[in-house]
Amino acid sequence: MTEVTLFDRSQMAQPVTPRAHPSAPVVPSRSALRPLGLDEIAVTGGFWREYQELNARTIIGHCLGWMERVGWTGNFDRAAKGTLGTDHSGIEFTDSEVYKLLEAMAWELGRASDPTLAEAYASLVARVAAAQEPDGYLHTSFGRPEQRPRFSDLEWGHELYCFGHLFQAAVARIRTGHDDELPAVARRAADMLYLEFGPDGRVAVCGHPEIEPALAEFSRATGDGRYLELARLFVERRGRGTLASTEYGPEYFQDDVPVREASVLRGHAVRAMYLAAGALDVAIDTGDAELKAAVEGQWKRTVERRTYITGGIGSHHRDEAFGADFELPPDRAYSETCAGIASIMLSWRLLLETGEARYADLIERTLYNNVLASPRADGRAFYYTNTLHQRVAGTPPHPTDLSARADSSMRAPWFEVSCCPTNVARTLASIPLYFATANNSGVQLHQYGTYTVDTSVGGERFALTVKSEYPFDGTITVAIEAAPLAGASLQLRVPQWARDTASWQCTDEGAVADLVDGYLTVSGALPAGTKIRLDLPIQPRLSFPDARIDAVRGTVAVERGPLVLALESVDLPAGIDTESVEIDVTSPVERTPTGARVTLRPRASTDRPWPYDGANGAEPGTPARAPAGQTILANLIPYSTWANRGPSTMRIFLPMAPT
Amino acid sequence: MTEVTLFDRSQMAQPVTPRAHPSAPVVPSRSALRPLGLDEIAVTGGFWREYQELNARTIIGHCLGWMERVGWTGNFDRAAKGTLGTDHSGIEFTDSEVYKLLEAMAWELGRASDPTLAEAYASLVARVAAAQEPDGYLHTSFGRPEQRPRFSDLEWGHELYCFGHLFQAAVARIRTGHDDELPAVARRAADMLYLEFGPDGRVAVCGHPEIEPALAEFSRATGDGRYLELARLFVERRGRGTLASTEYGPEYFQDDVPVREASVLRGHAVRAMYLAAGALDVAIDTGDAELKAAVEGQWKRTVERRTYITGGIGSHHRDEAFGADFELPPDRAYSETCAGIASIMLSWRLLLETGEARYADLIERTLYNNVLASPRADGRAFYYTNTLHQRVAGTPPHPTDLSARADSSMRAPWFEVSCCPTNVARTLASIPLYFATANNSGVQLHQYGTYTVDTSVGGERFALTVKSEYPFDGTITVAIEAAPLAGASLQLRVPQWARDTASWQCTDEGAVADLVDGYLTVSGALPAGTKIRLDLPIQPRLSFPDARIDAVRGTVAVERGPLVLALESVDLPAGIDTESVEIDVTSPVERTPTGARVTLRPRASTDRPWPYDGANGAEPGTPARAPAGQTILANLIPYSTWANRGPSTMRIFLPMAPT
Repeated sequence: MTEVTLFDRSQMAQPVTPRAHPSAPVVPSRSALRPLGLDEIAVTGGFWREYQELNARTIIGHCLGWMERVGWTGNFDRAAKGTLGTDHSGIEFTDSEVYKLLEAMAWELGRASDPTLAEAYASLVARVAAAQEPDGYLHTSFGRPEQRPRFSDLEWGHELYCFGHLFQAAVARIRTGHDDELPAVARRAADMLYLEFGPDGRVAVCGHPEIEPALAEFSRATGDGRYLELARLFVERRGRGTLASTEYGPEYFQDDVPVREASVLRGHAVRAMYLAAGALDVAIDTGDAELKAAVEGQWKRTVERRTYITGGIGSHHRDEAFGADFELPPDRAYSETCAGIASIMLSWRLLLETGEARYADLIERTLYNNVLASPRADGRAFYYTNTLHQRVAGTPPHPTDLSARADSSMRAPWFEVSCCPTNVARTLASIPLYFATANNSGVQLHQYGTYTVDTSVGGERFALTVKSEYPFDGTITVAIEAAPLAGASLQLRVPQWARDTASWQCTDEGAVADLVDGYLTVSGALPAGTKIRLDLPIQPRLSFPDARIDAVRGTVAVERGPLVLALESVDLPAGIDTESVEIDVTSPVERTPTGARVTLRPRASTDRPWPYDGANGAEPGTPARAPAGQTILANLIPYSTWANRGPSTMRIFLPMAPT
Repeated sequence: MTEVTLFDRSQMAQPVTPRAHPSAPVVPSRSALRPLGLDEIAVTGGFWREYQELNARTIIGHCLGWMERVGWTGNFDRAAKGTLGTDHSGIEFTDSEVYKLLEAMAWELGRASDPTLAEAYASLVARVAAAQEPDGYLHTSFGRPEQRPRFSDLEWGHELYCFGHLFQAAVARIRTGHDDELPAVARRAADMLYLEFGPDGRVAVCGHPEIEPALAEFSRATGDGRYLELARLFVERRGRGTLASTEYGPEYFQDDVPVREASVLRGHAVRAMYLAAGALDVAIDTGDAELKAAVEGQWKRTVERRTYITGGIGSHHRDEAFGADFELPPDRAYSETCAGIASIMLSWRLLLETGEARYADLIERTLYNNVLASPRADGRAFYYTNTLHQRVAGTPPHPTDLSARADSSMRAPWFEVSCCPTNVARTLASIPLYFATANNSGVQLHQYGTYTVDTSVGGERFALTVKSEYPFDGTITVAIEAAPLAGASLQLRVPQWARDTASWQCTDEGAVADLVDGYLTVSGALPAGTKIRLDLPIQPRLSFPDARIDAVRGTVAVERGPLVLALESVDLPAGIDTESVEIDVTSPVERTPTGARVTLRPRASTDRPWPYDGANGAEPGTPARAPAGQTILANLIPYSTWANRGPSTMRIFLPMAPT
């Protein structure tokens, strides 16, 4: 048997053999792992197929319908006609929603042909293109006689942020095989921005990062190095106080400290994550090891100290921002859907760059427990913020009303600031691209589901099928369809929660299988027909938070495989509410088809005139603890599915009954 | 001995004999207790004398100096000259700060003559008066050709709010014996508003309640019933959706539910409290028992479920609002100084109306632990928000910069929205008026300090001196200087925390002393020279929060007399921080001159890759609990004095070490 080079850390600094144009959102100039394109990986059934279909059949159309209704697409038409003035519909950055939807449509068209969608896409692109100014500028909120001048409000105007989403939409179009109208629009815009903000232009940045990763990727997709240089300038200029002071301070914009000097992500969570993603892109493509190390360090400390158990980030409603280390109140979690998506964007780049399992672990957590919490089961309403604890049952928003973004009691069909639905749409449209990668040794499976991989390693075909009922079941089977004659390695991520308990089997007796750095690595000839079975025990488990997270002291969360579970009021008997139960951690936690069953003890809580006058062990509100024998068996559900059965209260962290 | 009618509940519905014009901010048409005026009660030394002097010598001048510097007083000059247009200095409601300062100056002038202050007052009044329009309208942000029209933005414009503060300033002037220029200005304004918004005017309310209690009091001070009627209309109109919908929802403005139907205070905390105060004023003066009962119920549930241990209210930064019941995160406490002052305003009205000790208890708590936390020891910087837990040491604001209001890491000299400093000034200027009351039976002492009372009961003089080192010492001595020949009762509030432990002595053997409904009631002839000594044990005590306040589960606060104590980082040894210690509740808590000394155990906390993967009893971040023998004796200080020794971290609720 030819010796197979196993995937190991010493290889990570070596770039993989790049493929010309994989149809993927992120294609670094060099990286430890190579992203697969839409022609190399495809979901074929199961959990993710349902989400793909929900997105294709409902979410994309829902977003387009709303934007037509509220006039956000119409802004482009009026701009083209020259009739747009002070009557711009919506806030300053509605253009970005149109671009994110175009990105979603492009990925969806790349996945599956659909003439109706293709026509809707072409029509929308034409309307956008018609609004572009002769010099390449394109924005419906600035620059007309009745509007504010171009780039006159970099702090809040979101102009460059919108351009960033235009570029990402163009990348999706190019990478799905069409270098046509939208990429041309984007090139003209990027050329204009290079003159305006490039090496000979004004020294400025946008209040909302986004253009940085977008320009870096647009540079990769077009081969135009000027766009990377502009991305680099925007990264380097930040943290030097070019933005005017605002109520939230420079930290909000990440303008307090240069990116390469910062030790943690801070300020507005989406801004922080988009910026870090762009900084890493720049670091990789310019060989800037210091900048790369800074971003890696920021990720690490943010995960250790500033991340919710759902993977969500941001604990401040006022400025949609990170709190201090360990300031993670579940009932005031902002935990914006877009911040979770941005976190996945950063972790994905770090995974490609380093091949380290921890990045895929966080992607899994954030995807299942933060991003998927956003869309309602029917795809027609979304959470913008994702609280971890809802004390009062909400009121469903009226189906034709715009909602305020921070009202997270119930999902809403559309928001005044509606960044999240389109972000969900573009993420779901490209979802399998985050599942697996390749390198010179073989293929790596990072996320599970039912899908096929058909790629090449060392110039030879490497094809396989993956089947699982993940996330509800932990058995993953991989069947090799074709593998390089010289042998190869297949790596399957063993999630951090299963590292001590996972087991596996391989039908090829000649293969070597071992758990290395979080990946089950199976190497050998792997002849067609070889089957590998990985068992990840998904018995529900209790997760105890760090003692420094004050807000959840004395509580425990229940997780099951990759899913964070929650107690929802509709699963409790009448007369018992989520605020008056404690979990008996000495009783067994049973597995249910999608969640768990736990033993709860009701707490008899009555008001006293002043709620701080209790005695230790007999707190006020607990005049008579319920008799020891009185217990309730209650089902916990996947957190991401809460509030799909009408108004309810909910909590992830359950207070522990005294043992 | 003539029988003395003791103070009891059956009397409370009976109005006391009113005095013509007590110089006090609140003089209900009828109430169980009668407020004293500045000529009846005076601080003569001790703790409160220091605050009075700080206010008179520093705070009032500081406020005036800042408002001159930032152009808020100048707005009136430019309005008078006709040169004010779009260049108005500051946000829309800066006028209200000038009026609150005028109110503070009026009370201070009523307390102690000061020709310099009198001149400054007269000069400022003249500048305000010069800006009044011929029809009585007076506002520097609206109504000029370049400005928005009058009353065109009732949601956010704060016009009626500003008028409210004008009326309160006028009340202070009238009640301190001068019905001169400012009251005349206020009358003209109120007459104009009566036409605009009265029974034949537009059906509308102001987005920020304040005019309601102000008009009621202005009606009492002037005897003009139209102003009470207008207050009543504003109270009745609220909760019926006359304000346009905003991002924060109608609850923010208390426009969601009519006042008489609401069960709890909600929405923006200052707005909620001012409205409740005005509603109670209206209820009392119109004999509306239902409305009165509604406000009493709202107060009760708010105290039971929505109030911080400091008496502070408001747990949302975004909308400065109450959270849900038991949503009281210490690290995200907004707990605005103005909300505490407004809470005292409401509790004071309820105390006068009912005579119930619980209202005086909350006033005490809020005054010492929320309001007094605002001014820095030197009176030149203030907290707007009052967090109960600061994890990261702050940066002192530049002494000449305007600060954002919600940055509570360090006190700031002035804010873009600077409602709190002037509110502190007017409260301190009238502070003794909240200490004691009278009724037909005698005198009630609600708050302690060193002061004299010289009033009349049943037409006879009742004079006494109070001495104490309160709040640092719990011994209060009262010496009778003169008492009615027919006998009288003297009542001394025994705070809730001392009801089981207080003791007392009276030198008059004929007097009857008993603890009734929270008041030590001493009744008898009380001849001159009689001394009463009340001992309130101020041994530090542990206060355990209600089990439903999730954010402080597993913690305890230490209180000492009326003071909530805090652990500040500057009181810890090097290398130990406030976030890594637990309190040993089995060790004794010792009393120090102003605080307490507790036994802490350091917790060795180190980061793990993911902070939710701990095991019960051995949480992550606690790989090795410090050896049992390792303890620290640390001083706790009065919370209100924190951050007076430079940047620091601080916490009130201390995690409990396992016992």
